[in-house]
Amino acid sequence: MDSYRNRAVVILSGGLDSTTCMALADCRGEDIFALTFAYNQRHIREIESARDVARHYGASHHIIDLGAVFAASALTSAAIRPEVAPFDGKAAHSIPATYVPARNILFLAHALSFAEKVGARRIYTGVNALDNPGYPDCRPEFIDAFQRMIDVGTKAGTEGRSVEVFTPLIQMNKADIIRLASELDAPLHLTLTCYYGESPACGECDSCRLRLEGFRLAGKEDPIHYRKG
Amino acid sequence: MDSYRNRAVVILSGGLDSTTCMALADCRGEDIFALTFAYNQRHIREIESARDVARHYGASHHIIDLGAVFAASALTSAAIRPEVAPFDGKAAHSIPATYVPARNILFLAHALSFAEKVGARRIYTGVNALDNPGYPDCRPEFIDAFQRMIDVGTKAGTEGRSVEVFTPLIQMNKADIIRLASELDAPLHLTLTCYYGESPACGECDSCRLRLEGFRLAGKEDPIHYRKG
Repeated sequence: MDSYRNRAVVILSGGLDSTTCMALADCRGEDIFALTFAYNQRHIREIESARDVARHYGASHHIIDLGAVFAASALTSAAIRPEVAPFDGKAAHSIPATYVPARNILFLAHALSFAEKVGARRIYTGVNALDNPGYPDCRPEFIDAFQRMIDVGTKAGTEGRSVEVFTPLIQMNKADIIRLASELDAPLHLTLTCYYGESPACGECDSCRLRLEGFRLAGKEDPIHYRKG
Repeated sequence: MDSYRNRAVVILSGGLDSTTCMALADCRGEDIFALTFAYNQRHIREIESARDVARHYGASHHIIDLGAVFAASALTSAAIRPEVAPFDGKAAHSIPATYVPARNILFLAHALSFAEKVGARRIYTGVNALDNPGYPDCRPEFIDAFQRMIDVGTKAGTEGRSVEVFTPLIQMNKADIIRLASELDAPLHLTLTCYYGESPACGECDSCRLRLEGFRLAGKEDPIHYRKG
């Protein structure tokens, strides 16, 4: 009997989608390792939400601090790192320090490394193609390509027991996700959606609006508090 | 005219293969951003070698400290992170803390993110299939799959100007690499190969032996010092 069979990594931001993934993983009897990525200050509240959701499910919670990586590699760190040669800064000036290119690729690569470390067989991620039409790394084609890369690029993959990237929400709209979360009794009261990380939520940013519209279409009441409404 | 056309990221460990990649990138007129990954103590000497090689080519040198990431996410950190629930430790006990699963996937994902950040169009990596027959992530099939993943998963990729993963050494043996390095006047005297990070090199570990055999077959003299020899 393989004792690691039910271990799963869930990429958990503390938002509605990733919390629904937690609910699904829990429902499927997975032994959950929740993984939260931190890379800028705004995410402190998100990390708190993620921690609360992980606690709700009795899951272990691990934080990958990419902020430390980016601080060390940031172009702006030239001043404090004598070994870094001068840089003309053309690209740096136009891109905020908190911008993370290839974000989902980076998150999935770390989740994969973590999954191999703890012997997990599955990575849950709440990526969603419908909410993110402009993001290539939220499309099924990307997930398929990442899966293929795992299959040929890891020892487990070449031995036919690859880590699976599982994207249950990828083709669902927000109302579908909220209905699923309700059916699974996901702790949506703990989730954070507001772009500004506010509590009560602002109710006006794009993230809040998308969430509120989803609840309206799903015919459910949003359990979090809003400043307006 | 596109001012970023010649920017390239070179994954530089300070060893012979990655230094040869630096020489190739320099010869091809690339504006080089050397990227070194740190993830355990043994690598301090490697980082020094990498820094020296980057300086030799007047390249900017950036260090990605994955040690900080792994320290933060390590299973052993449960004691200092109250938000981490107890873990049974089955996997943790049998795997050293410095083991990095999916290493090349992680390195390439960070190199890709960095390349997008600085507007580089190419990533040089000295991965080599012949020296690493047991490593799936050193095979051309893996590189092809990673490239495909970039092509469909990044904005630049979907717009037909993907970041290219360039693996000039992937099918070369050590003697071929040493001959190429010599032709390009690569500063092999600055490189570190010894598994134990020693200087003079031990001359006896697998890494030293492979290097010495390569120089012998190439008919060249190794410019570094060995304890024996």
